[in-house]
Amino acid sequence: MSEAPARNGVAAFVQPHRMMADGLPYADVVDVLERAETLDEWCDFWEAKGREYEALGDEALELGLEPTAGEYLWLASMCVHYAAHMAFEDSERRDAGQREKVRVYDRAAPYLVPSAERVGVGVDGITIPGMLRVPVGATGPVPWVVLIGGLESTKEESYLVENRFLANGVATFSFDGPGQGEAYFERRLVPDFERYTSAILDHFAEHPALDGDRVAVFGRSLGGHYALRAAAADDRFRASVCWGGCYDMTDFDAWPPMLKIGFAYVAGRSIEDTREFLLETHTLDGLAERLTAPVLAVQGRHDEIFTMRQVDKFATLPNVEILVEQDGNHCCHNRAHVVRPRMIDWTIRALRA
Amino acid sequence: MSEAPARNGVAAFVQPHRMMADGLPYADVVDVLERAETLDEWCDFWEAKGREYEALGDEALELGLEPTAGEYLWLASMCVHYAAHMAFEDSERRDAGQREKVRVYDRAAPYLVPSAERVGVGVDGITIPGMLRVPVGATGPVPWVVLIGGLESTKEESYLVENRFLANGVATFSFDGPGQGEAYFERRLVPDFERYTSAILDHFAEHPALDGDRVAVFGRSLGGHYALRAAAADDRFRASVCWGGCYDMTDFDAWPPMLKIGFAYVAGRSIEDTREFLLETHTLDGLAERLTAPVLAVQGRHDEIFTMRQVDKFATLPNVEILVEQDGNHCCHNRAHVVRPRMIDWTIRALRA
Repeated sequence: MSEAPARNGVAAFVQPHRMMADGLPYADVVDVLERAETLDEWCDFWEAKGREYEALGDEALELGLEPTAGEYLWLASMCVHYAAHMAFEDSERRDAGQREKVRVYDRAAPYLVPSAERVGVGVDGITIPGMLRVPVGATGPVPWVVLIGGLESTKEESYLVENRFLANGVATFSFDGPGQGEAYFERRLVPDFERYTSAILDHFAEHPALDGDRVAVFGRSLGGHYALRAAAADDRFRASVCWGGCYDMTDFDAWPPMLKIGFAYVAGRSIEDTREFLLETHTLDGLAERLTAPVLAVQGRHDEIFTMRQVDKFATLPNVEILVEQDGNHCCHNRAHVVRPRMIDWTIRALRA
Repeated sequence: MSEAPARNGVAAFVQPHRMMADGLPYADVVDVLERAETLDEWCDFWEAKGREYEALGDEALELGLEPTAGEYLWLASMCVHYAAHMAFEDSERRDAGQREKVRVYDRAAPYLVPSAERVGVGVDGITIPGMLRVPVGATGPVPWVVLIGGLESTKEESYLVENRFLANGVATFSFDGPGQGEAYFERRLVPDFERYTSAILDHFAEHPALDGDRVAVFGRSLGGHYALRAAAADDRFRASVCWGGCYDMTDFDAWPPMLKIGFAYVAGRSIEDTREFLLETHTLDGLAERLTAPVLAVQGRHDEIFTMRQVDKFATLPNVEILVEQDGNHCCHNRAHVVRPRMIDWTIRALRA
């Protein structure tokens, strides 16, 4: 794993490769690694950056430069995201960060190219918030992909992944499900995430821009597990990608404390209850055999969250292709420039088939 | 200057911020800073990366994934570029690198979005090579900008800058002039670069996609000096941007040896002759008063190549706006995410005025 070492107390959660791959400025990443020694310093740094880029977005808007405005406002939302994404032990700061990220991203949405449209999908009395983006110039129904975040990666963080799909004529719908992003405030982790992805397909079934016969599901980290559940439960999904995800939660006991705390946070349970809940409900046992569409599972050999033991279990899935990146860390963020295009292109090809 | 320190003998020319801003993968930049201790190791690393990404481009082509192919082939050309861009003391390697960069970039050109079309412009018995890109979906004549590289930055390195212009509906023509990139083999530095930029305007005067009344010139480092000359000599240029450039060459004596060697290389003269040639010919004295269009001069306070003394001279230009970035290094590469959008947006606004 070649993540550049953090020199300080924030080392438990700092992932420079991930932040670079998700679009944070190199200068800022270099700066924060040199400066921030505590969680508070880390948060303060990124919150200040968020304000700086939001101001640049406002300036661009005043000058009539909408593409620049969209980019800065999105960047501001990413800074806010990374300020408190792992602040599970300071719930006030974390919760405020989630809400602030949404506020700033929503300002960016109309100016992104293509723009992002907020769409709410009703499920079980709550509204699942998502962002729909359709390729510029699309005239008829186009293939599309449903993007799922992870423990603390949210719909706003999918922007650059979306852009690669969109450049290839594929529309995107990124959403926050139970426990994720702004949906966390409405609902904690559930045992049946697949009901939420199926509700999304129901919601968009008649949408004139989206081709219901060509839709894939693409999930990151914990969302990779959910992507497999989604495809197993609903054969309207023509393909699924499990990006740094898992078959089950049997890695739990070996996790560092912060990760257990994080899962407990979004589960709304004690750590011990969360452990039991995850082990019992977050497994593909009993679901896997229902997978009919092609599956891509991507695994970094040095992933310390979802380990190589998951790969042995992925191998039991029907119709699965497994990509093990030999130098890869969690989600292969340290090989993002190679692995992300490969996963996205695999999905595009599956939708064309 | 907050360039991350290189730990080894390649420190004389390594610019991680520049490479990141120009689109090199973070993982590779981290790797090379850890591994390469000599120029040969540096070259070997990037040449191998160039082959790796060209192979990925070929694979994408075979799979019918053209946008990915274009991106990988372009990335391969950048790796080849950075392999030998400063190898002025190994002319065989440097010259081969220039030719190889062109070969790989030309493979990328048709698959870039929008594509790049090679256009040759005849001047004084040679052909100046450039790449024309027109915004996707443009229907009539659009504003456009002529992009000029520097001592060792070439047209291929303008790709990400071009993309920002193109996303805003502005076409781009990036070229190699005397001493630069592949044009070096035809002609060394000249005293009157402005004749080449005017020839470009002549060449495209009747082009149906380009609006001859809305064209700007935008130059980087040494190219910033040339951009000012271009606009002074030809009032068809409606605006000019001098990005980390100079008014004259009075900083020469304080330069580190490699920079002097580099200038001598592209001038095709001894270092002493180059010094005299530059001091005598590369000055805006006698030209500056002919500038009528608005000028933006961008300077990093910590630039050690073109120093703050240039700013005092820029201040004498008519119709000039000067942006001094307090933390900026050469070309403000360490503030690229803020300074590049600002310069590009300034140009777009000037073309709209």
